[in-house]
Amino acid sequence: MGKIFLKSVLVQNAGEKPVRKDVLVDGNRFAKISDEISPEMAGNAEVVDCRNFALLPAFYNGHTHAAMSLLRGYADDMELSKWLNQYIWPLEAKLTDKDIEIGSRLAVLEMIKSGTVFFADMYWHREQTMKVVEELGIRATIGVTISDILIPPAGLKANFEFLEKHTGESERVKLSVMPHSVYMVSEEYLRRCIEMSEREKYPLHIHLSETESEVQNCKSQYGCSPVELLERLGGLNERLHAAHCVCFSEKDTEIFAKSGATAILNPCSNLKLSSGIPPIVKLMDAGANLALGTDGDSSNNNLDMHEEMKLAALLAKVQGGAEKLPAPEALKMASVNVARMNGIDAGVIAEGKLADGLLVRLDNERMVPCFDLISNWVYSADSGAIDSVICNGRFVMRGGHVDGEEDIVREAMDCARDLASR
Amino acid sequence: MGKIFLKSVLVQNAGEKPVRKDVLVDGNRFAKISDEISPEMAGNAEVVDCRNFALLPAFYNGHTHAAMSLLRGYADDMELSKWLNQYIWPLEAKLTDKDIEIGSRLAVLEMIKSGTVFFADMYWHREQTMKVVEELGIRATIGVTISDILIPPAGLKANFEFLEKHTGESERVKLSVMPHSVYMVSEEYLRRCIEMSEREKYPLHIHLSETESEVQNCKSQYGCSPVELLERLGGLNERLHAAHCVCFSEKDTEIFAKSGATAILNPCSNLKLSSGIPPIVKLMDAGANLALGTDGDSSNNNLDMHEEMKLAALLAKVQGGAEKLPAPEALKMASVNVARMNGIDAGVIAEGKLADGLLVRLDNERMVPCFDLISNWVYSADSGAIDSVICNGRFVMRGGHVDGEEDIVREAMDCARDLASR
Repeated sequence: MGKIFLKSVLVQNAGEKPVRKDVLVDGNRFAKISDEISPEMAGNAEVVDCRNFALLPAFYNGHTHAAMSLLRGYADDMELSKWLNQYIWPLEAKLTDKDIEIGSRLAVLEMIKSGTVFFADMYWHREQTMKVVEELGIRATIGVTISDILIPPAGLKANFEFLEKHTGESERVKLSVMPHSVYMVSEEYLRRCIEMSEREKYPLHIHLSETESEVQNCKSQYGCSPVELLERLGGLNERLHAAHCVCFSEKDTEIFAKSGATAILNPCSNLKLSSGIPPIVKLMDAGANLALGTDGDSSNNNLDMHEEMKLAALLAKVQGGAEKLPAPEALKMASVNVARMNGIDAGVIAEGKLADGLLVRLDNERMVPCFDLISNWVYSADSGAIDSVICNGRFVMRGGHVDGEEDIVREAMDCARDLASR
Repeated sequence: MGKIFLKSVLVQNAGEKPVRKDVLVDGNRFAKISDEISPEMAGNAEVVDCRNFALLPAFYNGHTHAAMSLLRGYADDMELSKWLNQYIWPLEAKLTDKDIEIGSRLAVLEMIKSGTVFFADMYWHREQTMKVVEELGIRATIGVTISDILIPPAGLKANFEFLEKHTGESERVKLSVMPHSVYMVSEEYLRRCIEMSEREKYPLHIHLSETESEVQNCKSQYGCSPVELLERLGGLNERLHAAHCVCFSEKDTEIFAKSGATAILNPCSNLKLSSGIPPIVKLMDAGANLALGTDGDSSNNNLDMHEEMKLAALLAKVQGGAEKLPAPEALKMASVNVARMNGIDAGVIAEGKLADGLLVRLDNERMVPCFDLISNWVYSADSGAIDSVICNGRFVMRGGHVDGEEDIVREAMDCARDLASR
């Protein structure tokens, strides 16, 4: 891996003042950030003139189902159970290894183009997604999905063995235990997932209290809410990554916040499926750890963390007042908070940190005028302002272009056409 | 004005199936749309190969304050009255004719780049904005803003004379009467605005029931809600273009819907300033005419109608169920509904209509796969998928580029820097 010298770039971290700096990337880390870096120090680094760019933290997507990009627009404007039972699950049942590979590649392309360098993925055929992440240069936590309702015993056994061996983990790809939800996993298997998470130090990632019916069914079956059930089973702790968290009681919010678990909010998806508005301000006020995710392309219908970030900020304000979730905090929910919970030493532009970041055009019409760079970035810009994306010390997008993107798009078009006709 | 021949383009109107057609633009209208247009018929038209493009209705922005683009990011994350009194109004007081011209130009650039070809504008120094609209080739309804609290008598008199003479109206630029709001205009002047609107056939455009405090103050002063006040004064009818409409009682909703007036919702701004979530579903269910606007850059913080369209759809779903405000209806609220209420014979791609439209890249990663083009456009894409923008029969953006955009951006940067230091 070579060196990159970002000459005279406006470094902007969330909650700090922007500062004009020279930045040297060496290997996969920010080696030096200072007022001026000498040519001697830069050595054989590639020099990039960054006078027109800000260097901002990249996005980290806390919860998605990447390969569902193939199902984008297949079914919309209907409620969750009809959407799943009549449309999504029947089509998903036809997906092959090759489809998952192609869908994952489209998803990763879409994420890179909108500034995302990491995603936590819950899906099937995980080896395909892992391969695509290695190939396209970003990061992921790939879930080993557990559901004893959906997966036969041999498959479950294989999944736990996969986890025990930490199969396929690498510098940029990690695994996590992903029991689907309290309604798709029995109590016995929830316990086994929690044990595995503790023993092998994996995140425990689950869909939690996404809808009111999930909560009501849990109460009928277990006599308590999904949050209380996890607490009872010993799964409510810092290791828990809980997606959605829409239908929390006051007690749920309180014990969740105290536990150190993280709520990964997916507001676009929750609104679109009419599941509800996540109680962002209540969670914040209770002191819960908060992060953002996009959910899958079939319920969002994109993987754009920028949209999720702005929507979260808007919803917090209408819930609790215009001063709630100011722009820097919204950016953190979409970047460093997700990175940190996934054990990635990135999300802040600083010496020694992993070299992930976005070069954002300061002369984009939506970044002008520049009274407040973070405000412009969070509230005004869209992904059109991103010129380049850096992950792990190398460019994964440059001048708005990702290597091979035309082929990825064409292959996905062909694959979806074939899938629909099967 | 020349001819444009859009060869083999996927024509997509809201609520219709996409159809592959040849489209001939002659003068400022769609002259012919058919399976094949012969070279003889196309004559000397410029031929554009559109196999990779969909032709979609452009956006029409129902309510904004264009020149406030200069104040983008100047103050955020605070409630409305502090935002106005301590930040926005003191800075606005310094704006000169030249500033308004420069700010309007930045706003129009921003709108074109996000696919908008029309805006209804409420602001000051209107001649500057009118000039910029003529120059950059789009459409506008420019408000003559009335407030006897903010404007001295001589200015008010001049404004009414301006309206009587239809000063500066042209093919693409029209005027409207814009009493600011029931709290910034006295009863006497509200009446005069309503009379002017009726006599000269102008839209009557007003901020209406934006916040709960506006409603409460109106009740204290007049003993009724702002909607009821307009009804009492004879201003609640088809000519009324009411921006915001956030804090409506059930009675307000009912009489508003029956009157034939149009509510122009600005959900981003209303959420960001914590004014409330507009009652989209209640208004729809009551049969009210609905349209969308962005409000100004200082409260949104952009002029992107696509964002507004998606947010309106998401909010409707979480209010009333996932089937509410399906994608084609959301697109209409952002396009043809706004065009129609402003007397513009456009917003639908059809023979004889004014030739406004967007060429959207079908191979954009967020437009793939294409099970449902409108769903992809409304829920997945962002302005990055727009290749070209056509207004009144000519390209105002081509291949993502607007003529002179670099100068517009640089001038706005310089102007804002100077403004802040005055």
